[in-house]
Amino acid sequence: MSVSEFSLIEKYFSQQRYSRDDVLSGIGDDGAITHVPENMRLITTVDSLVEGCHFTSDTSPYDVGFKAVAVNLSDIAAMGGEPCWATLALTLPQADTKWLSEFSKGLFTLLNKYRVQLIGGDTTRGPLTITIQINGLVPEGKALARHSARPGDLIYVTGSLGDAGLGLLVSEGKRHLGQQHADYVSEKFLRHVPRIEQGIVLRDIATAAIDVSDGLLSDLGHILDASQVGAKIIVDHLPLSDAVTHALTHAPTHALKTETVETNSWDLVLSSGEDYELCFTVPANKRSKLEEVMAQFTCPVTCIGEIQIERELQCVLSTGEKVQPARSGYDHFGS
Amino acid sequence: MSVSEFSLIEKYFSQQRYSRDDVLSGIGDDGAITHVPENMRLITTVDSLVEGCHFTSDTSPYDVGFKAVAVNLSDIAAMGGEPCWATLALTLPQADTKWLSEFSKGLFTLLNKYRVQLIGGDTTRGPLTITIQINGLVPEGKALARHSARPGDLIYVTGSLGDAGLGLLVSEGKRHLGQQHADYVSEKFLRHVPRIEQGIVLRDIATAAIDVSDGLLSDLGHILDASQVGAKIIVDHLPLSDAVTHALTHAPTHALKTETVETNSWDLVLSSGEDYELCFTVPANKRSKLEEVMAQFTCPVTCIGEIQIERELQCVLSTGEKVQPARSGYDHFGS
Repeated sequence: MSVSEFSLIEKYFSQQRYSRDDVLSGIGDDGAITHVPENMRLITTVDSLVEGCHFTSDTSPYDVGFKAVAVNLSDIAAMGGEPCWATLALTLPQADTKWLSEFSKGLFTLLNKYRVQLIGGDTTRGPLTITIQINGLVPEGKALARHSARPGDLIYVTGSLGDAGLGLLVSEGKRHLGQQHADYVSEKFLRHVPRIEQGIVLRDIATAAIDVSDGLLSDLGHILDASQVGAKIIVDHLPLSDAVTHALTHAPTHALKTETVETNSWDLVLSSGEDYELCFTVPANKRSKLEEVMAQFTCPVTCIGEIQIERELQCVLSTGEKVQPARSGYDHFGS
Repeated sequence: MSVSEFSLIEKYFSQQRYSRDDVLSGIGDDGAITHVPENMRLITTVDSLVEGCHFTSDTSPYDVGFKAVAVNLSDIAAMGGEPCWATLALTLPQADTKWLSEFSKGLFTLLNKYRVQLIGGDTTRGPLTITIQINGLVPEGKALARHSARPGDLIYVTGSLGDAGLGLLVSEGKRHLGQQHADYVSEKFLRHVPRIEQGIVLRDIATAAIDVSDGLLSDLGHILDASQVGAKIIVDHLPLSDAVTHALTHAPTHALKTETVETNSWDLVLSSGEDYELCFTVPANKRSKLEEVMAQFTCPVTCIGEIQIERELQCVLSTGEKVQPARSGYDHFGS
């Protein structure tokens, strides 16, 4: 006998969830009911992962569940929010109990870590697609936005760039690394840590923020467009892990070819997606305050450039030499 | 040149949206920001439509967009909520501008009618799947739930039952009707009207409510389970449209066969899904108040039975004769 939809949901998605006092009614009715305090504003994010587009059929269900939550938490982080409640719309080809068990472990590992309660969902039959929506809270007037970067602001990123892009190349067999580096970039590709704590601290310091999901140039470009400004990036100031540094300095350029675009070395760092670090802008006079409050985290922050009045995005080396990237980011339907 | 993801979203999903004062930031940042008043509670619903499961490849994109919103609004109605904000996660095989144009028309027709603003989304490449989440508001303590039906309560439904199920049979070529009846049931199957206004009125009258998405017996069964009660349904009191009455009285039983289950005539009304009417319970002493406030709507409400202490769901004719349904509802992964 096959498992019914309702017992599927009940079994895998009701047991493990974190329970919050502000959830008045969770899974089990036509809709969930939650409470938003008067001085808080509601943040809403939604992201889908599709098999064959965002992950391959041999990606572990644990990693799929983990990543489906992580990409949404990264958006909450980029708004300076505290994540609270999640819904899961899960389209599955069949009721595969082993898959569901592992998937839900990955999902709840991250939901529980950030005290997010799963409050609803819909399970349907079809090609594997996972859509998660997360609602978070932010104090009134404190949300981070893309549109408020100002000329003279310093541009920062958390963590390091290019790890996930390199992890993808390794997973596709397009790049070979020693075991230690390969493990490191695979972990960064599949199980990145959302920068929730950093986003919350940045509410009082940053002028603008975004998460680096499509590549630094593409995502910083959204800040520049929304803020009607430009920027200069010092490419050799970009924070790189040992693995990426090794890959950049030891690889022949042709080893970094992708299917359609021949990338130069910097493109791995400037344009590959899914690092899910925060890119944010800070007034120059808040530099020391920023570096002081960020010292509490093991994750570094690095100044990579400056916002300018001129509406262009310049990439230069610290010698002043210009760098011309081959591509600006990732686009699902792009040419 | 193909259309980029961002301009796709911009073109079809930014122009037509209803603009609400309580949306502080909509599409265009990592997350939307909205305001929930202190005395209100937040309702969250999510539902997916998958091509090949919930609609066929020849369903018009307009109808797909309309229905994707309607199924969610029906959940908001069943909670007694006022719908406010929606997100759209759209997985598409390709950037088909004609499809997107028609789909968005259907989507916004219903969103705009109920003053719901589209505040965010994610567009991905893959097999056609639409997931919509709607957030609504309900005054503190006024949400309708499934768990509070009491013995002696009267059971009501809005509108009529079996229309959508008959519409599906007609669309699949399994049942033939005259043009007028065929048009009527197709409209009910593809473009049902969510019972938002009725749900709001029911906040002060009903003890429990649900929307009939999986079939009356299945959905009423959820109320009975959650409330730990039973019910008696008077089957020949169920409200039927002329089309369904015609189908029941003129069809040989074998004409209502589905692929796996041989249904008898009553099963079309008791167990076929997607009518999206409200099924709700009302204390017997509020009967006249209910019928008075419901008189403002063109859509009728009909008393179909009574909640009982005995935890079973009895179906009887008004003569007292028992009716034994062949199946209880629809289940995506059921046996």
